[in-house]
Amino acid sequence: MPAQIIDGSALASTFRERIRARVQALIGRGGTVRLDAVIVESGDNAAKVYAENQAKTCNTLGIEYKLHRIKSLPDHPVTFDDIAGRVLLLSSDDTVSAIMMHLPLPEGVDTYKVQRLIAAEKDVEGVNPANIGNIVYGRSSLAPCTALAVIKMIEHVVAPGENGLGSAAAAAPMLRGKTAVCVGAGDVVGKPIAVLLMRHDATVISCNKYTPDLASVTRRADILVAAAGVAGLVTAEMVKPGAIVIDVGVNRVKGADGKNHTLGDVAFEGVSKVAGHLSPVPGGVGPMTVAMLLNNVVEAAERRQTTGR
Amino acid sequence: MPAQIIDGSALASTFRERIRARVQALIGRGGTVRLDAVIVESGDNAAKVYAENQAKTCNTLGIEYKLHRIKSLPDHPVTFDDIAGRVLLLSSDDTVSAIMMHLPLPEGVDTYKVQRLIAAEKDVEGVNPANIGNIVYGRSSLAPCTALAVIKMIEHVVAPGENGLGSAAAAAPMLRGKTAVCVGAGDVVGKPIAVLLMRHDATVISCNKYTPDLASVTRRADILVAAAGVAGLVTAEMVKPGAIVIDVGVNRVKGADGKNHTLGDVAFEGVSKVAGHLSPVPGGVGPMTVAMLLNNVVEAAERRQTTGR
Repeated sequence: MPAQIIDGSALASTFRERIRARVQALIGRGGTVRLDAVIVESGDNAAKVYAENQAKTCNTLGIEYKLHRIKSLPDHPVTFDDIAGRVLLLSSDDTVSAIMMHLPLPEGVDTYKVQRLIAAEKDVEGVNPANIGNIVYGRSSLAPCTALAVIKMIEHVVAPGENGLGSAAAAAPMLRGKTAVCVGAGDVVGKPIAVLLMRHDATVISCNKYTPDLASVTRRADILVAAAGVAGLVTAEMVKPGAIVIDVGVNRVKGADGKNHTLGDVAFEGVSKVAGHLSPVPGGVGPMTVAMLLNNVVEAAERRQTTGR
Repeated sequence: MPAQIIDGSALASTFRERIRARVQALIGRGGTVRLDAVIVESGDNAAKVYAENQAKTCNTLGIEYKLHRIKSLPDHPVTFDDIAGRVLLLSSDDTVSAIMMHLPLPEGVDTYKVQRLIAAEKDVEGVNPANIGNIVYGRSSLAPCTALAVIKMIEHVVAPGENGLGSAAAAAPMLRGKTAVCVGAGDVVGKPIAVLLMRHDATVISCNKYTPDLASVTRRADILVAAAGVAGLVTAEMVKPGAIVIDVGVNRVKGADGKNHTLGDVAFEGVSKVAGHLSPVPGGVGPMTVAMLLNNVVEAAERRQTTGR
């Protein structure tokens, strides 16, 4: 029997509906929901387009969107201090509940140093290290969006009733007795995913490019997450029949037709004959990641309303 | 051939000598090394004795020790605000480079909320969630002392030349191609150990009490860390011949003689015939954990001197 496809676009759409309802409820209780985004503008760049689309999406969900522009001019280039100051200002502003920083930052500015200045409870991208630490320690937390997308997609399969109920860290463990394997141990995606899987009480195996006999490890996986950044790395014979397979890979590969294609880390056609559930690329983790940012925005606003901070 | 015993007391002693030398070097460069410890005093308690011993140990290593006492009286019990205020004061004081909080805190005070107020770069116990997050993200960081002790003991076996060179997070990966299994996924010890093992590029398997067929998992381990809190859980048939086995368990068990004994999670006698290296309980991770706190104290002071913060 072929795998059921986990449709990330459809699931993201469901989440957006829930987010819209939560925003309305929050406004009904006298609250506000706003995303404050910071962007460094230096001529044309992709972030600008992304920010415009983000503004539109927020608008359709009832979320206010405020874009803070920092201009970088050839003879007055923006420095770390300029950006850090702006982030600190937003972090300490009581009217701000959700902050994101558009990338890339100008050359020479340490992105990590900027991100750790975002107040943890407003850090809707989950990039402040305190947020991943809070997940390790089992505290309610804003998880990194890609890792959260993966967890929500697994949840959609194994515990569909739970979707959208609270944060990744606070959710009830759903993977007891299951073996979850994450192929790829990068700092931004692989390691945070492994931590979130531990949070859900799975037996977690974190693999990297040095793992010997990878196939013998992945074949143990009830849940298999491919986050290695290698097109087609996970093939059918590496997958346990019936496993849930989530493909995080986004690889641009030139095809025989000379055009660029986006391929995942999973060899889709073969694996779809073995896996029980499989997320495609594109249309899987990608759209869910975008939705998770907005999920974190409404969650941060809800939490502020509850705690009064 | 019986396992080589990893003597935690001897290794801790080696570390103390190195710490003493680093302290002297730092003072020679015009720096200071001090540990600021906060204690809530409510009559007699074990923390007081611990603090006195700590003062003595610091003294022998040339580390200043300053104990900040907060008195809790029956009719004026100490509140969260009292403790939090003191911690914030130390966190923002430029003359302070290392802070620790003696436990337990009074009933009703959330320990975690206090710990997250300790400035990450002064948090020598590694209990601020930002510090474990920094480890996930591969940044120089002060690691939780027990987890750091485990890593340093592994390092002593696999890369003995590296000992004491910088922080856990910044150290060069030493476990590429190795499989490391951590039995026990508690928030304070098991999960942080798993994260540190990932940092060293091991293939990491995090097991918990729901893991099916635990023995088949542990037998894959080149490095096996037992941190489940169950006396004698890891038996000889669960260990791969030649493996490095680190026992984090501290279980108080009443023996046939009616007396309390301290037992590890590893069935020592049997496992010592199979493992290549084995740390005992007591005399293994325990004394190393105490030494790691002081290691973090000197590291925090060194880093402040280097960065000027």
